[in-house]
Amino acid sequence: MQSALDRDALHPALQDPVLSSISFLNDIMSRYPDAISFAPGAPHLSFLADFDVARYVDRYVDHLCRERGHTPDQARALLYEYGPSRGLINELVATALRLDHGVTVSPDAVVITVGAQEAMLLALRALCRPAVDLIAVVEPCFVGVLGAARLLDIGVVAISETGDGIDLDQLETACRAARANGQRIRALYIAPDFSNPSGSILNIDARRRLLDLADREEFLLLEDNAYGFTASGEQLPTLKALDTDARVIYLGTFAKVCLPGARVGFVVADQIVRAADRPERLLADEITAIKSMVTVNTSPICQAIIGGMLLEHNGSLAALGHEKATLYRRNLALLLNELDQELSQGSGLPTGVSWNRPAGGFFVRMRLPVRADLALLELSASTYGVLWTPMSYFHLGSTGDNDLRLSCSYLDPEQIEEGISRLGGFLRSLSP
Amino acid sequence: MQSALDRDALHPALQDPVLSSISFLNDIMSRYPDAISFAPGAPHLSFLADFDVARYVDRYVDHLCRERGHTPDQARALLYEYGPSRGLINELVATALRLDHGVTVSPDAVVITVGAQEAMLLALRALCRPAVDLIAVVEPCFVGVLGAARLLDIGVVAISETGDGIDLDQLETACRAARANGQRIRALYIAPDFSNPSGSILNIDARRRLLDLADREEFLLLEDNAYGFTASGEQLPTLKALDTDARVIYLGTFAKVCLPGARVGFVVADQIVRAADRPERLLADEITAIKSMVTVNTSPICQAIIGGMLLEHNGSLAALGHEKATLYRRNLALLLNELDQELSQGSGLPTGVSWNRPAGGFFVRMRLPVRADLALLELSASTYGVLWTPMSYFHLGSTGDNDLRLSCSYLDPEQIEEGISRLGGFLRSLSP
Repeated sequence: MQSALDRDALHPALQDPVLSSISFLNDIMSRYPDAISFAPGAPHLSFLADFDVARYVDRYVDHLCRERGHTPDQARALLYEYGPSRGLINELVATALRLDHGVTVSPDAVVITVGAQEAMLLALRALCRPAVDLIAVVEPCFVGVLGAARLLDIGVVAISETGDGIDLDQLETACRAARANGQRIRALYIAPDFSNPSGSILNIDARRRLLDLADREEFLLLEDNAYGFTASGEQLPTLKALDTDARVIYLGTFAKVCLPGARVGFVVADQIVRAADRPERLLADEITAIKSMVTVNTSPICQAIIGGMLLEHNGSLAALGHEKATLYRRNLALLLNELDQELSQGSGLPTGVSWNRPAGGFFVRMRLPVRADLALLELSASTYGVLWTPMSYFHLGSTGDNDLRLSCSYLDPEQIEEGISRLGGFLRSLSP
Repeated sequence: MQSALDRDALHPALQDPVLSSISFLNDIMSRYPDAISFAPGAPHLSFLADFDVARYVDRYVDHLCRERGHTPDQARALLYEYGPSRGLINELVATALRLDHGVTVSPDAVVITVGAQEAMLLALRALCRPAVDLIAVVEPCFVGVLGAARLLDIGVVAISETGDGIDLDQLETACRAARANGQRIRALYIAPDFSNPSGSILNIDARRRLLDLADREEFLLLEDNAYGFTASGEQLPTLKALDTDARVIYLGTFAKVCLPGARVGFVVADQIVRAADRPERLLADEITAIKSMVTVNTSPICQAIIGGMLLEHNGSLAALGHEKATLYRRNLALLLNELDQELSQGSGLPTGVSWNRPAGGFFVRMRLPVRADLALLELSASTYGVLWTPMSYFHLGSTGDNDLRLSCSYLDPEQIEEGISRLGGFLRSLSP
């Protein structure tokens, strides 16, 4: 007879709603394959239809031969071996940051990671000592950072989102409260450009005030810029571009602009680390040491695919994202327009239903007159054939229980139209 | 002016010798590019010379089309999207385990990981609660597991290696001591087949006795089988094959048998997890939930490469490893023979120098009459042109300070001959 393990004797993160609810959510999704799903924040498939892995790898191999004087066989062998934990395409990433954001960093300050998720985990681990260091997040918050913090036994402090981004007074108070408690808020995780899940944006004043507060209260900023490329017109300067005191650790992903299947992201950590017994190092060096014990290195084959894509677009991520951004803006505008059509006209807006109007990104936040929980999602899927994500996953406490997230990135226009029509039926069925 | 971070205010793992010494070691390596290096445990490059990424991806895409009725475009799109956290090629891995090791597990009990390193990290995280659960290792121990434990703030207990593998009495005593201290040894990490770094093997009796002890003292076994494929003749049964009570979590890598650059490994965790408030799950389900917060998923492109390689070899990892094993056995035999020739004959064995004679694997353990530290390695590299790995990296305490590790996997025969000749000169220069 096989002995069983007790869930209570596993790591407590596994009892956290953030981790345990994912499987329930996936389960509902898989049981309604014909439902139109506003749940996944995945990139649109149309860009991947003719994707040619070999062409991009070849492009990067050519680059290696020219830049490093390798023969093609030598260059190709580099992709098949382990390779450095810091990464292979660090210079290309540093170039893209300069071209796209006016951010100048040494390639050594860049660590190539298995997606932005690993970047986040590594940065949190480097920065936070057990029991002492806390991480602050803007709530609602991307689940990936909540989950990573839970796994690493790092306490999380939620700071409210406001109209112009984040409640800085609340953040300042939280910093002082932590200090009074013998702890400290080590870093704030924030996505200033069209955050996941609420699509909010931090205006330029708020960016400057946040950097000032970080200086004053001595915390770092973990800036996640996954969705900035979807901005129409000029993008606001990143926190990293405004950063004069190395307060900002910048997290990047290639999943939205290149492809998710490569699982390549990066972290920029140009902070100087001092120790009595050795020369100065960069925080990126420390993050690299941690990475060597998490995934050893990011697949060089996958890095070559991303490297080849960057090279084909003159080294610019923004150029790579240009065509995609057009599609996402079209989808978001259509989603908002359909919501207006379906819910505000004719039969009238259902009581207690409202939503925000992000200027970019993949997501819209909607408020219901009732709890947007798994039971309600099940009803929405089974009776109305439409799926969405309960916003409670993105909250630490019980706030946000009536909210849901609608994602428009993965769908085609006709699916958005039909999906919002179905959602309208569902919303009108709710009694507050 | 940029403010600096204090190393003491970062996570304490970064001050651990395991993590901090890696950069020193890499630094020495990079400063002596012409030295012959017995340091890296990397696979031999000859197998990667004509490696064709596209061919293996195509082979796997064909398989997907046949098995799941996808069109080639649909199948290919699966590789470019995020994909499930548990993995894509789980069935192929389950088949390989059955064919190669007679181990029958459900594909759902397999989680595909970013190399065996991530597999280790995820398993440790799932199993160990803060402050309560400890991990035991056979010392000397693969640094990857020590590093992962440090990052996760998990205490490590070292158990001595013996002639037949591990000191089981010491392990039993350690289990009781932990309990008396309000803690428990949750799992033992062990590589029963030609361990890294010492090349030791656990004989069949020791395997059975270890499983009995695990039952009695209620700990799990983390079995790492990276090097078992190098055995000449019949391989001993894996712990997992002997396991009747789901005591063994099996860690696998494709780096040695396929290629390191894909960064694909796996963990088999068919243990049942019970909780009062939900149906039974597999430990693999819990590990999958943790993976979703570490790397989200393993690159489906990389999984396709490995999948294609398995399919080309009738689903067997052993078949894939067959030709490679021949080369590694040749290299190991040559290394041992050259040591005999160089050190035992003619000028005589230098006083206080000895080494073991593993029957497989990549590594030989050598004892010196003096401390085998970084200063000595620097001397060996600069004056004699030969590199090796100080064994102290694989120890928790100060034991093993006089030992070094020689790896034969990466070198060609003429390099081994010349390298051992250089090593002979170095060893004869040491005065005990």
